[in-house]
Amino acid sequence: MSSTVGQVIRCKAAVSWEAGKPLVIEEVEVSPPQKMEVRVKILFTSLCHTDVYFWEAKGQTPLFPRIFGHEAGGIVESVGEGVTDLKPGDKVLPIFTGECKECRHCKSSESNMCDLLRINTDRGAMIGDGKTRFSKNGQPIYHFLGTSTFSEYTVVHVGCLAKINPEAPLDKVCVLSCGISTGLGATLNVAKPTKGSTVAIFGLGAVGLAVTKKFGITEFVNPKDHNKPVQEVLVEMTDGGVDRSVECTGNVNAMISAFECVHDGWGVAVLVGVPNKDDAFKTHPINLLNERTLKGTFFGNYKPRSDIPSVVEKYMKKELEVEKFITHKVPFSEINKAFEYMLKGESIRCIISMEN
Amino acid sequence: MSSTVGQVIRCKAAVSWEAGKPLVIEEVEVSPPQKMEVRVKILFTSLCHTDVYFWEAKGQTPLFPRIFGHEAGGIVESVGEGVTDLKPGDKVLPIFTGECKECRHCKSSESNMCDLLRINTDRGAMIGDGKTRFSKNGQPIYHFLGTSTFSEYTVVHVGCLAKINPEAPLDKVCVLSCGISTGLGATLNVAKPTKGSTVAIFGLGAVGLAVTKKFGITEFVNPKDHNKPVQEVLVEMTDGGVDRSVECTGNVNAMISAFECVHDGWGVAVLVGVPNKDDAFKTHPINLLNERTLKGTFFGNYKPRSDIPSVVEKYMKKELEVEKFITHKVPFSEINKAFEYMLKGESIRCIISMEN
Ligand SMILES: NC(=O)c1ccc[n+]([C@@H]2O[C@H](COP(=O)([O-])OP(=O)(O)OC[C@H]3O[C@@H](n4cnc5c(N)ncnc54)[C@H](O)[C@@H]3O)[C@@H](O)[C@H]2O)c1
Ligand SMILES: NC(=O)c1ccc[n+]([C@@H]2O[C@H](COP(=O)([O-])OP(=O)(O)OC[C@H]3O[C@@H](n4cnc5c(N)ncnc54)[C@H](O)[C@@H]3O)[C@@H](O)[C@H]2O)c1
Ligand SMILES: [Zn+2]
Ligand SMILES: [Zn+2]
Ligand SMILES: [Zn+2]
Ligand SMILES: [Zn+2]
Repeated sequence: MSSTVGQVIRCKAAVSWEAGKPLVIEEVEVSPPQKMEVRVKILFTSLCHTDVYFWEAKGQTPLFPRIFGHEAGGIVESVGEGVTDLKPGDKVLPIFTGECKECRHCKSSESNMCDLLRINTDRGAMIGDGKTRFSKNGQPIYHFLGTSTFSEYTVVHVGCLAKINPEAPLDKVCVLSCGISTGLGATLNVAKPTKGSTVAIFGLGAVGLAVTKKFGITEFVNPKDHNKPVQEVLVEMTDGGVDRSVECTGNVNAMISAFECVHDGWGVAVLVGVPNKDDAFKTHPINLLNERTLKGTFFGNYKPRSDIPSVVEKYMKKELEVEKFITHKVPFSEINKAFEYMLKGESIRCIISMEN
Repeated sequence: MSSTVGQVIRCKAAVSWEAGKPLVIEEVEVSPPQKMEVRVKILFTSLCHTDVYFWEAKGQTPLFPRIFGHEAGGIVESVGEGVTDLKPGDKVLPIFTGECKECRHCKSSESNMCDLLRINTDRGAMIGDGKTRFSKNGQPIYHFLGTSTFSEYTVVHVGCLAKINPEAPLDKVCVLSCGISTGLGATLNVAKPTKGSTVAIFGLGAVGLAVTKKFGITEFVNPKDHNKPVQEVLVEMTDGGVDRSVECTGNVNAMISAFECVHDGWGVAVLVGVPNKDDAFKTHPINLLNERTLKGTFFGNYKPRSDIPSVVEKYMKKELEVEKFITHKVPFSEINKAFEYMLKGESIRCIISMEN
């Protein structure tokens, strides 16, 4: 691999030229990593709703051409100046939010919202010099979430890479880069139910299913089966309310229901879903005065570099059922199928294999 | 004192015959305590906003004639059947909310919202038999908050009495029955700021002042001095937001400001104020997703019987500056002056002495 160090790499990437249009596998140029950056050979990547959402570009300023992708696993190819934590050959998961280890958030045990490397969906370039590391025939191609994993090689800030167990199978643990860790952390780090607690989960996509950790769901309630607000149904079912609730939908009404269905005195509601710009969370303040707690979490409160390696260890120790999330697999050349499966609601996670 | 045990006691009480009209000192009859009840000789009582609010009867169904009062200190005169925790001569603080020690809330370390004895502002009688223990010439007089301390003697459920240090001076510690413990507990039990944290307090009545515990306020911000929302002013002053905020106003806009002024990542907002029936708490859910926490507290999360004795101990150990809250004193015969001081906004707490 040493032959490529310091060189531009020409490799295949799935480029999104236009909002909502199929990605095109192109040969692109990937510049060497600059100061505090790492170039990573991606082996497996998976598709998440956030990719689809920005690819559709319905709610945001469009930024194209762009290379999407943020759930992935790979191997360090080379490192830029100042990178001491990683070396070529290390197994890593790129993460859409980072950990600089120096800002107030990184130094606080309560926060993972790094001032320097916090998620930024509008940014299409590296933070060091404001330039892209991808191009085709001299035309820059924008990055996405600092990860852009729909490419055989990508350049990532060292603060957005979790160094994981070299034994970990990347075709499985790649899904721990985003949604599954988010759901898992929402439970373990934020909701913290005690043994025997009742927990209501709103939304059973990848995030919601990960909240359950071991798929231990006892009752399913479809809000559409009832002619009253679902929080009232849940309060009746549980003699006053659930002990914990976790909202994983992004729907503001589900957020309100998730809050209003927790028991007074000790109930804790955790919001995970990403709301729309104009949404308003609205409740009667007496619901708060009655000793309920409402919190939100970002990436399950995990710090990417400090904590994600131990999430991978949970998988290695068989404490996490990652395989059940993986419903589909496609080769890189068929990446557009992964979009179709998700748009049709058929997949939870579709693994995209770069090497065949 | 034994001569009165089991007998009706004739004594003075300040009776509120009509909403908003001066109280009238009357000779009333106080029945002996029934099962799980205690008759208490009140020595000192103080006036709280909640008394005034229900005396004005603007927002609620009026219930008159009624004996108000819920912040007080007294001595047990006699106990009813089944009362084993208290005996004649014990020094007690009546509390407007109770602790049965048997329900799920009482057994939970997180809640103080007893199912049996939770505050009930509509109830005007004892929970055992639904009758009043006060009467005048055969006409029942309603209770208030289960305490009715504007009377030389009152009957209280044993679950609403905190047995305190016999050395404690009741003319001081009587104010620990309600607002001051609420503010103190909101800090110590709920907001839990760490050393060096920035804390914003909204509203500096008795509750808000008690949040500070030792009157350590460094900056005063008057929302009226600024032409933008006060949360924005606070966020600028504190480089991103305060670590903790405690709302002690009852104003829903102050509640929203208190939430929106906390720092992302780790900020915690605690709501203490009692909102109006039609208020709506409204915020953008992204404020939650950014890892802020919103909680409410009732009576500072203190359990009346288990915890209030230790709050009195804090005063005894000079860790609490109770005296600074006491701005006025009047004899029982002049109780209406206490209402005037409060209505004019002149007093924080006015102590009413029953014995002279
Ligand atoms: N906070 C974070 O760091 C973070 C990270 C990843 C994803 N997310 C967000 O989490 C949410 C879930 O992500 P996902 O990948 O699991 O999405 P998903 O679309 O796979 O799952 C959402 C599920 O919620 C269901 N749903 C929608 N409205 C509902 C309602 N009112 N009541 C009950 N169920 C409802 C949908 O049917 C769907 O099954 C999204 O909003 C996503 O943006 C947040
Ligand atoms: N949760 C509980 O268990 C509990 C117990 C006791 C009292 N309370 C409530 O706590 C609140 C405070 O009680 P108190 O006795 O100290 O009342 P108070 O009236 O003495 O004090 C409230 C203060 O808030 C100020 N204020 C009002 N609106 C404001 C705003 N928008 N911004 C800043 N300041 C504002 C007022 O000027 C006043 O000084 C009340 O709502 C009361 O009902 C709650
Ligand atoms: Zn994702
Ligand atoms: Zn940081
Ligand atoms: Zn009070
Ligand atoms: Zn109880």
